[in-house]
Amino acid sequence: MADKLTGEARTKAIAGLSGWEEVDGRDAIRKTFRFPDFIHAFGWMTAMALEAEKLDHHPEWANVYRTVEVTLTTHDVGGVSDLDIKLASKMDALAG
Amino acid sequence: MADKLTGEARTKAIAGLSGWEEVDGRDAIRKTFRFPDFIHAFGWMTAMALEAEKLDHHPEWANVYRTVEVTLTTHDVGGVSDLDIKLASKMDALAG
Repeated sequence: MADKLTGEARTKAIAGLSGWEEVDGRDAIRKTFRFPDFIHAFGWMTAMALEAEKLDHHPEWANVYRTVEVTLTTHDVGGVSDLDIKLASKMDALAG
Repeated sequence: MADKLTGEARTKAIAGLSGWEEVDGRDAIRKTFRFPDFIHAFGWMTAMALEAEKLDHHPEWANVYRTVEVTLTTHDVGGVSDLDIKLASKMDALAG
């Protein structure tokens, strides 16, 4: 089960990521990734799909050619959880 | 080069697809695909990514777990073209 992040722990966890921002009106975080082209964008999505399935925690994401906009939240806890931070870290790491 | 579809040809082409609708305020078509789970949704996206790259014509698409919302338009011609119809047909066929 995921742990919902609140207060200081939540703020710190998000600040520890690279370039993720709050989503207006939702307890969620968002980041837009840009790649050289579609092959790189979708290649990255594929790697992240495997990680997401392994974590049993999936992103909301939209792809337009070389851009991928990702929103992370944990429906089970109604907000940002440690699982979102974990998945976000993996996304940052592989996007390089 | 893609051919922009207009008038009767455009209407017929879209009607020949399965469940695609006009997008308000844009010359584009849209369909929401639903799959049994994330593995099926992303598996289908992967197959379509290969087709898109081969056609050098890419969708705008958003995935949330087992749902994929696709928007197709051809920027080069400023509207729906034969390439969109081709990609839409492939999407319908593989979604089954």
